Amino acid sequence: MTTHAKPLGPIPDGFETIDGQLAVGGKTASALVEAAGETPLFVYSRQLIETRMARLREAMPQQLKINYAIKANSFSPILELMVKLVDGLDIASSGELCMVQTTGIDMSRVSFAGPGKRKDELEAAIAAGVTLNLESEGEADRALAIAERLGVAPRLAVRVNPDFELKGSGMKMGGGAKPFGIDAVRAPALIKRIVEAGCEWRGLHIFAGSQALDAEAVIETQAATLALADRLATDAQVGLTRLNLGGGFGIPYFAGDRPLDIDAVGAALGEKLDNPLPNLVQTEFHIELGRYLVGEAGVYLTRIVDCKESGGETFLVTDGGLHHQLAASGNFGTVVRRNYPLAIASRFSAAPEEVANVVGCLCTPLDRFADRAELPRANVGDVVAVFCAGAYGASASPSAFLGHGPATEMMV
Amino acid sequence: MTTHAKPLGPIPDGFETIDGQLAVGGKTASALVEAAGETPLFVYSRQLIETRMARLREAMPQQLKINYAIKANSFSPILELMVKLVDGLDIASSGELCMVQTTGIDMSRVSFAGPGKRKDELEAAIAAGVTLNLESEGEADRALAIAERLGVAPRLAVRVNPDFELKGSGMKMGGGAKPFGIDAVRAPALIKRIVEAGCEWRGLHIFAGSQALDAEAVIETQAATLALADRLATDAQVGLTRLNLGGGFGIPYFAGDRPLDIDAVGAALGEKLDNPLPNLVQTEFHIELGRYLVGEAGVYLTRIVDCKESGGETFLVTDGGLHHQLAASGNFGTVVRRNYPLAIASRFSAAPEEVANVVGCLCTPLDRFADRAELPRANVGDVVAVFCAGAYGASASPSAFLGHGPATEMMV
Repeated sequence: MTTHAKPLGPIPDGFETIDGQLAVGGKTASALVEAAGETPLFVYSRQLIETRMARLREAMPQQLKINYAIKANSFSPILELMVKLVDGLDIASSGELCMVQTTGIDMSRVSFAGPGKRKDELEAAIAAGVTLNLESEGEADRALAIAERLGVAPRLAVRVNPDFELKGSGMKMGGGAKPFGIDAVRAPALIKRIVEAGCEWRGLHIFAGSQALDAEAVIETQAATLALADRLATDAQVGLTRLNLGGGFGIPYFAGDRPLDIDAVGAALGEKLDNPLPNLVQTEFHIELGRYLVGEAGVYLTRIVDCKESGGETFLVTDGGLHHQLAASGNFGTVVRRNYPLAIASRFSAAPEEVANVVGCLCTPLDRFADRAELPRANVGDVVAVFCAGAYGASASPSAFLGHGPATEMMV
Repeated sequence: MTTHAKPLGPIPDGFETIDGQLAVGGKTASALVEAAGETPLFVYSRQLIETRMARLREAMPQQLKINYAIKANSFSPILELMVKLVDGLDIASSGELCMVQTTGIDMSRVSFAGPGKRKDELEAAIAAGVTLNLESEGEADRALAIAERLGVAPRLAVRVNPDFELKGSGMKMGGGAKPFGIDAVRAPALIKRIVEAGCEWRGLHIFAGSQALDAEAVIETQAATLALADRLATDAQVGLTRLNLGGGFGIPYFAGDRPLDIDAVGAALGEKLDNPLPNLVQTEFHIELGRYLVGEAGVYLTRIVDCKESGGETFLVTDGGLHHQLAASGNFGTVVRRNYPLAIASRFSAAPEEVANVVGCLCTPLDRFADRAELPRANVGDVVAVFCAGAYGASASPSAFLGHGPATEMMV
């Protein structure tokens, strides 16, 4: 094989092989495709999500509440499952509010963050009893005015832009000038004001970054978050009923990525929570995770519709593409394109035999799933699996692009 | 104002100012928002599209046919307009086939390119009488088998991956190993085969790149395309009924970008077509354009829902975002983020007064429309205009992301 091959990302644990094929939940890729009636499709594994949650509960301190940020994947069967598994849901729009309302969850378990909440979104959330993570003084004014008009005590938390960032995170949500939350230095005045206005005080939301794989960085950030929260409570002279520590737990996407050591994170956090800072003695602690809970439990299955050779390279052309899996094509928040984990699902147990490019069906050079990957030989009709498709896949891709429409989604 | 300001892209010609506001088609931004009933919305100007087409016809050789690649924008009123203005439509999926069928266009004026056509897409296109731009030998086999089963002579062209690229183009569609078309060296054998199989022979499709602003590069590429087509016709020993020269005409998005000199391109092409190479005497010539025809005729209007200060910077938070305008956020095929053309629509004639970041409502640092732009002072309720929103905007963005849903579109 050529020396020009590029590595694929690591295939997540928990996927099976049956009759040489990739299998999820005891069903082979071809059985899944048959059940769906067509390709492409997203398959989410209930068992992998449950296993992930159980493992996470085991690693985290017992008193820590775990929330699910539904933006990662709001497919209705996943929401229904998550409502049973987690302690709360985090939403980011009134559209997501409607989705969580269909699950029947108690709205006191739902919080709403987002830098650009419209007035009608604030009103819908306040009326429903959702906790608003306030992102600015102006938003606080609007929320208090709406609550007064509605005659209710709104559930309010303050989102703080911390004066530090989560080192090594894929996306910095805090540190420096940011559109998220209010700068730590201005938080105490706002906290005082909303508490005095008679809201149901729901504490602080501090989110420093996402997609981190380095346990030391997460531990350091959580410690800094606790210290900041304690300091802000002192400055604001209020108790801290709740603290949402944010999330940031990453998953391995690319060759060389190592899973986050959640045992190390959990042990360090447990020690902090067992020996709380003065203002955090009565505090309920939350983390909110999206990608970490569901990302590795999903796989995108797409059929090869053409095999061709060009310029000495092999191209496997699929009926899927970036219109369903934008991030996997390397076009969503990535600077240098690297290969996601990917396999020939119909020949999952076969050894690599050729170097091939796997591309989507769109008429753009951006539509590429694998660059010069070592794969077993594949033909028209074979099914390709793109892993790590459980989060920010279906919902974060331009499904109307080129008139293709969304992919089927199923949970097994 | 700070020296850290970053330039905005150039606002396209043809937008008006009425009462100090941005206006399109004689209607102010606030009137447009009122007509739509909500923000965000896309507004497309019929007059700007018509002006663009008239200007293009004037610059191009009279015998050149101009096609519209509907992937750029398939909003139904735009399709209806384009059917009247152009000589043909180019589609990229069976979804787009359904769209063009609703316009009542004669299907002999429609061609279908795309590297991953499914069998059902090939069948639908052949049955409808659409010209297929074949992308590989395998696809030719499938198309011929389907046509035989249907008992029709399919309209077939061959898409060729040229042995050159369009220099300076935003996206290389040709040159080197590519998933598009078949390598020039193998084209003659395929052409012979399909002509002998009794298809209705529709010539060649050669597309070397897109989003080029350098007239010299476009002229050079068109000359190379003509020479390649002539050589392939000689090698295949067939006449060339048609030649689709591709497109590639770019529009200015960023500071420093200059419009493509279409007069220079048209004059050079005219000379070539007036003095055709031996195999191109009977040939009908086409170009296919998408972005160039509609990109600058569209604007995205989004309302400011929060103004905030963080770390000494001003943030104008809008109710729009990358879920509607992915490319403008710098997350679609761009490596280094630069500012699109953008203005405060409600204060269009005002001079810059502050440096501000304009961000979307999504809870991700990727959601940014302008980085440190010099703008008139804006407040909650003001409307922001993001220009160059007519192509690859609404249809090429992840509208379901965070549960927001698509934006309203209107043509005025």
